[in-house]
Amino acid sequence: MDAVADRPDPPVREMEAASLSIDPALEPARPRTFIKSIVSGEVGVLVGQKVVVGGWVKTGREQGKGSFAFLELNDGSCLSNLQVIVDAAVYPLSELVPTGTSVLVEGELKKPPEGTKQRVELRVEKVLEIGPVDPAKYPLPKTRLTLEFLRDFMHLRARTNTISAIARIRDELAYATHTFFRQNGFRYIHTPIITTSDCEGAGEMFQVTTLFSDAEKLEKELQQNPPPSESDVEAAKLLVKEKGEVVSLLKSSKASKEEIVASVAELNKAKENASKLEERYNLKPGLPRKDDKIDYARDFFGRQAFLTVSGQLQVETYACALGNVYTFGPTFRAEHSHTSRHLAEFWMVEPEIAFANLEVLYFNNLDDMNYAENYVKFLCQWLLDNCREDMEFMVKNYDKTAIERLELVSSMPFERISYTKAVQLLVNVTDRKFENKVEWGIDLASEHERYLTEVIFKKPVIVYNYPKGIKAFYMRLNDDKKTVAAMDVLVPKVGELIGGSQREERLEILIKRIEDSGLPLEPYEWYLDLRRFGTVKHSGFGLGFERMLLFATGIDNIRDVIPFPRYPGRADL
Amino acid sequence: MDAVADRPDPPVREMEAASLSIDPALEPARPRTFIKSIVSGEVGVLVGQKVVVGGWVKTGREQGKGSFAFLELNDGSCLSNLQVIVDAAVYPLSELVPTGTSVLVEGELKKPPEGTKQRVELRVEKVLEIGPVDPAKYPLPKTRLTLEFLRDFMHLRARTNTISAIARIRDELAYATHTFFRQNGFRYIHTPIITTSDCEGAGEMFQVTTLFSDAEKLEKELQQNPPPSESDVEAAKLLVKEKGEVVSLLKSSKASKEEIVASVAELNKAKENASKLEERYNLKPGLPRKDDKIDYARDFFGRQAFLTVSGQLQVETYACALGNVYTFGPTFRAEHSHTSRHLAEFWMVEPEIAFANLEVLYFNNLDDMNYAENYVKFLCQWLLDNCREDMEFMVKNYDKTAIERLELVSSMPFERISYTKAVQLLVNVTDRKFENKVEWGIDLASEHERYLTEVIFKKPVIVYNYPKGIKAFYMRLNDDKKTVAAMDVLVPKVGELIGGSQREERLEILIKRIEDSGLPLEPYEWYLDLRRFGTVKHSGFGLGFERMLLFATGIDNIRDVIPFPRYPGRADL
Repeated sequence: MDAVADRPDPPVREMEAASLSIDPALEPARPRTFIKSIVSGEVGVLVGQKVVVGGWVKTGREQGKGSFAFLELNDGSCLSNLQVIVDAAVYPLSELVPTGTSVLVEGELKKPPEGTKQRVELRVEKVLEIGPVDPAKYPLPKTRLTLEFLRDFMHLRARTNTISAIARIRDELAYATHTFFRQNGFRYIHTPIITTSDCEGAGEMFQVTTLFSDAEKLEKELQQNPPPSESDVEAAKLLVKEKGEVVSLLKSSKASKEEIVASVAELNKAKENASKLEERYNLKPGLPRKDDKIDYARDFFGRQAFLTVSGQLQVETYACALGNVYTFGPTFRAEHSHTSRHLAEFWMVEPEIAFANLEVLYFNNLDDMNYAENYVKFLCQWLLDNCREDMEFMVKNYDKTAIERLELVSSMPFERISYTKAVQLLVNVTDRKFENKVEWGIDLASEHERYLTEVIFKKPVIVYNYPKGIKAFYMRLNDDKKTVAAMDVLVPKVGELIGGSQREERLEILIKRIEDSGLPLEPYEWYLDLRRFGTVKHSGFGLGFERMLLFATGIDNIRDVIPFPRYPGRADL
Repeated sequence: MDAVADRPDPPVREMEAASLSIDPALEPARPRTFIKSIVSGEVGVLVGQKVVVGGWVKTGREQGKGSFAFLELNDGSCLSNLQVIVDAAVYPLSELVPTGTSVLVEGELKKPPEGTKQRVELRVEKVLEIGPVDPAKYPLPKTRLTLEFLRDFMHLRARTNTISAIARIRDELAYATHTFFRQNGFRYIHTPIITTSDCEGAGEMFQVTTLFSDAEKLEKELQQNPPPSESDVEAAKLLVKEKGEVVSLLKSSKASKEEIVASVAELNKAKENASKLEERYNLKPGLPRKDDKIDYARDFFGRQAFLTVSGQLQVETYACALGNVYTFGPTFRAEHSHTSRHLAEFWMVEPEIAFANLEVLYFNNLDDMNYAENYVKFLCQWLLDNCREDMEFMVKNYDKTAIERLELVSSMPFERISYTKAVQLLVNVTDRKFENKVEWGIDLASEHERYLTEVIFKKPVIVYNYPKGIKAFYMRLNDDKKTVAAMDVLVPKVGELIGGSQREERLEILIKRIEDSGLPLEPYEWYLDLRRFGTVKHSGFGLGFERMLLFATGIDNIRDVIPFPRYPGRADL
């Protein structure tokens, strides 16, 4: 009590009362109802019922010579707006109608007049809250805005129909992902974002460091508290020498034990002081260096650390213990790439399956390709089942074939052809001139991939068994010694959606593949241990989550299907 | 065909056949069955049925003078092992019994003899695959290992009972999180990992950069292709001068148009060459500098960029459009903290709710505290319903009260007291001497928090309305002007599990709070825009996912409840 009583204000009881009191003008209490529940008739919302709804005005207009207003109110729970009618007696209409205004209103659901398209409308009895907008300053006018324009308003663009529809589709795909893997006995593993391994051995990686801020702190510290001069250090050293001489003298003169102990204590004190001074004297502003290089031993993790380019290698450690696992998280590439298909930060889904091959062998339903195909089909069916309204919006505004594509992919078996067969087919193409010449050994370009899936097969295609020279060291060498057990899933509209492989489980071959790739073995010792101790055949794949969104929505630029895109020169917010 | 035919090998048809052939010795084909399905009797697995199972040998022993072996086989699908019996005639037993050996076996499920604890055992007919272990080299012997010891074997520790049980509990909590928020109408938003905003204005942040690798590349480039000398540059400049004089001469002598055009072209070429040489001459190895500071304009994002400490500010932009949203992702703190409660990389769940206050006002069931309480209860109940076996393992080996705690929290209403009341209670404590003195205005220490929840209330406690001086600028100022609408959820065992607040939605007050915190306004202009245009009351909270795991499992060190812990000096794998 004392500590509280010491402070004159605020009195305890009053504070409590103030924070918990209910404004009687706002009663009766009633929870907010989502507009989705109202417009879809989901939750037994009935004409005649009183509800509280909150949202942002999409469009508002005064009618009947200013006697009432219509508001199209959206709360983001679905694409549809709720039509809201407010009488001038209830609230000043001019404050309610500007686009972007937020309102929380209470009223009664009514049946609209015959001939209107709404199933239900809300007649407002009370305006509980309002967040006004000055239309002259609002950056997002009612007119249709380009997606490119909206990228300069990262903090407001979620209020548009397109970006909010994409956000809902993205949420559904994320939930569908967790649902699919759970149904198939997979465990979700959080692989690290900061890593000291480089998965591909070639990736352009972002470095994670505290050296700059440490250097800044040091510089400030040295300014506030200047280091000792050379003569300070010399004086301190001299003192050590003198104290040492005193100790010697006392010892040789057989002084009393106490005297010697006291002099040794003084000597130690002097030594400590000298070494502290010397350490501070040697402090150099700027980044720590050793042998003319930056001394990463003094960075946060005691070595260079990076942002992950893939969680695969790490999640393999869990696959080799839990069997079926997956990771779903952000990954990074520091590529100076300004295309509509690349981001510096993007999300990947990476399942990893123990006791699984690339193709069907003795596991009828457990191999890598089947999981990949089933997963993509599941995502497509999920959107058809759970996201109709937003998908119809995409069809109407961005891509007429978006729903057809989902139906096609969810219902048709994927074509499966070897890389060699794919090259054969592409070499024989006569109706089209490719920019990149096709021959066995090349990495297929996007134009080739799209031709295979869009023109030749008109459905998703899995291409497998790629030349080893164009694939990563960890992919399993086939018996032909020329190809590895890799596969890519190609889909119309985006080309490569999934890349996967069976992993090399044979220790000796893996070591040789690492060496042949020109990589050092030491950083991969832990990865080799998985093969040394109870190795298993295992396989996995990675799905670029934003690629899936481009595929599903028909949106052209990847910067519009992630809430906060990062690319060279831009990391807003 | 041509391109393929050009290459002598491998012949197309043979390759295809090789990659797709099925080894007849391995037929009949049969999918792998999870041990969980067998031991729990889930999927209609019956005695007499043939199954294929794969996993790692926990313990193996030869019996009957080497005529058969018992293997305790675990595949990570659950804690339980399957008892497997192999006759010496089927496979050399000595290769099967070492701990850590992986096997894929086919056999028939049998009823074990009376009096054994197993419900079912597997009699092996074929060993389909084996991944051997040399017991002399296997780093994880059968003996019980400390969690600290296991931290040096990050890549193998998932094979232990404890770490795999934690992984399954973690997976369940993640899925429960998505389920809870989906059931409550929340959308999952991926907030950025790389950010140019600093949420707290105080966090120790990791910097993300490509400057080091750019400098390395430049250095290599300059070594391979040395810059021009000063005299090269001078010579090039001289050439420009000469070519300029030629142009003047031709013009003044009224030469033909062609002659003049040609001489101007030569002049331009010389100028271009000189400027290129000069640019290369000015290239300095090392980090780019401007005005004696590092020039971050030349970093990847054109400015300093950091790893996020919280997705809150960014997810608010979506709450102010979609209503109920949440983020669940990795966050980072570059604190040199070596405690058992801190990680440099950890996962946070951060819901954000539009039209919601901190405490019940007119939304009976939609306020921040209720969501926090319901969410924690949901997680606890989920583990009780879905994770019994692993939780019982925790009770047996780590924390006798772990299940009791889940039952308590899932069933009891949380206590709710103001900060002022909490201080009052703690000041009156006589049976305990706190290390940190309690008085109004201090930030409660862990010892205070745990005393409130463990001793005084013996259940979770929500403390709300904290002094504004100890809380972040974005928390809503209460009418008393002394406190802000913040809340912490305290639970037994870990203390603070959740921190949340109502956000300041009033533009002028928010501006003042930013200024009073000594922060510049400019970086928060986008955040202020949310208040300028259709502001809404909104609230949210953050749950430290690893804290929840400590709470649930009773494990003491946070480094053991995340697959790949990062802390000062360590970022293995």
